[in-house]
Amino acid sequence: MTVPTIGVTAGDPGGIGPEVVVKALARADELPAAAFVLFADPRVIEAEEARLGLRLAPRVWRPGLVSEAGVFLFPVDGKNWPPSPGRVSAQNGEASFRAFEAAVASARAGRLEAVVTAPISKAAWALAGHPFRGHTEYLAGLYPGAIMAFWSERLKVALFSHHRPLREAVAAVRRDALYDYFGSLHRALGKAPGGPFRLFVAGLNPHAGEDGYLGGEEVEEIGPAIKRAASDGIPVNGPFPPDTVFREALGKADAVAVALYHDQGLIAFKLAAFATGVNVTLGLPFVRTSPDHGTAFDIAGKGVADTRSMVEAIRLAAAFSATGS
Amino acid sequence: MTVPTIGVTAGDPGGIGPEVVVKALARADELPAAAFVLFADPRVIEAEEARLGLRLAPRVWRPGLVSEAGVFLFPVDGKNWPPSPGRVSAQNGEASFRAFEAAVASARAGRLEAVVTAPISKAAWALAGHPFRGHTEYLAGLYPGAIMAFWSERLKVALFSHHRPLREAVAAVRRDALYDYFGSLHRALGKAPGGPFRLFVAGLNPHAGEDGYLGGEEVEEIGPAIKRAASDGIPVNGPFPPDTVFREALGKADAVAVALYHDQGLIAFKLAAFATGVNVTLGLPFVRTSPDHGTAFDIAGKGVADTRSMVEAIRLAAAFSATGS
Repeated sequence: MTVPTIGVTAGDPGGIGPEVVVKALARADELPAAAFVLFADPRVIEAEEARLGLRLAPRVWRPGLVSEAGVFLFPVDGKNWPPSPGRVSAQNGEASFRAFEAAVASARAGRLEAVVTAPISKAAWALAGHPFRGHTEYLAGLYPGAIMAFWSERLKVALFSHHRPLREAVAAVRRDALYDYFGSLHRALGKAPGGPFRLFVAGLNPHAGEDGYLGGEEVEEIGPAIKRAASDGIPVNGPFPPDTVFREALGKADAVAVALYHDQGLIAFKLAAFATGVNVTLGLPFVRTSPDHGTAFDIAGKGVADTRSMVEAIRLAAAFSATGS
Repeated sequence: MTVPTIGVTAGDPGGIGPEVVVKALARADELPAAAFVLFADPRVIEAEEARLGLRLAPRVWRPGLVSEAGVFLFPVDGKNWPPSPGRVSAQNGEASFRAFEAAVASARAGRLEAVVTAPISKAAWALAGHPFRGHTEYLAGLYPGAIMAFWSERLKVALFSHHRPLREAVAAVRRDALYDYFGSLHRALGKAPGGPFRLFVAGLNPHAGEDGYLGGEEVEEIGPAIKRAASDGIPVNGPFPPDTVFREALGKADAVAVALYHDQGLIAFKLAAFATGVNVTLGLPFVRTSPDHGTAFDIAGKGVADTRSMVEAIRLAAAFSATGS
């Protein structure tokens, strides 16, 4: 049997990343069949196994051979030992950055179908001299067409813009950029499981501007971009009132809601898909997923972290891999 | 027994307003004890009773006497008969405007503790020559401190701004206006049932600006306004990341989330409180509530309209009345 090879990073060793990864992979028999390759400092994984009383016993990964299902390890030296638990530190930042970098390098070389990333601390990355805002921004540096999206059974959301001030995000709502984006997103979704997908585009202004009465962007920018993309054959609709588009898309298996700015999409997603939502980076030659939560330093090391989102991230990575993404 | 007197308007006669009002009041024994005064054209109510096979048999209201529980009628001549079902029309707009105007006049004269409004069509109001965007804007003309809020058991949201283009709403986020708003909201909530309330203020930018990295308003405007209001003794916290503040407030009975613009609050509220949410206008000498849905012309006259939100709007009006609002 051929199974996909899926890289999994343990994230910041001071956060809940190692815990949710070890807990999820300890029940690998409940996950889709895959070769799961842990990118982490072996000492972090061993310490976590001991603390949780779980046994992964990963084998060392030998890329290039035929993949078989199971848990493997790609050892990444985290340098300093032990890591600082429960807080931002340069050494933890360096460790999580190295592991992520190694996983991405393997994926770029075609050795992984997908990469699942446990949460990192961008403050820790900054202390370690890696000034990326997060995994997505690192990937966007390599692949400028990278798209941040959020995936759950109930709701799927793609963001037109993400980490920028709202004032700038509003100014960026221009027809040419939107038209290009709809094309990129449609192509990227061609590789997503469960497609083909219809795009439900949110407006920018209250009630989608009410024919210009509450803002001009729907008439001047968003509407024309949708029309042009639709005339190319892309199944794209809208603009819908922002406060109803997510309910419109909710529960429709083939709907992806397009949010024009970070919080438009994330307010909806975090309410509709709490705990099981998955962050997905689309538009790469491989897929990258991650749980929809952060390092949660406050509960790190307590064994109480909720693994559902990590399990869903792994499942979704496997589903994307199966469609040849 | 002294009971509150609560005005109820039937809304646009071509929409689902008359239906949800008649259905809700037909089961007045399941509502809090009150004198419910219908402001409507008697012919609209009679036709709706006949169509639904329900009997309200309202008595004519005689304000000024001691209130007794039951359903009463304040007849408002809707002029043209019959109304146009299922569509926007000037005559329907005129009818719903007159009924609302009469209810507000009674409330201003101190004869009603609360007004519950069924949905109107602002397009119909415009055709009839009444250029208000809705009930809230009409009331804001009389009471400039009127605040649009949304109420449900799970989540309560107050809007800092509502019907304005997002670009303008962003520019309006200034410390002095915010400070004044926190004070007004706190005072208005003093009359709300279930208080005292804590305010949870959303930021404007992704992640609440991350110390200025993703936008300056949190540091320059919102934070200082919160600090100043807090130093006055107002229980106000934030700014919180917009995509987590509503989850933070969710389920906390004493929390009111403050949204800085229309969709920030409404995206959250419509997902968290669909079908049972109530629109409340605060900061008036009386309270005004309404169901969180529109005229729904597409299902008008079919007898299938969901009355839950109207029932909740009536219950909430009664609860506000009981606290002496």
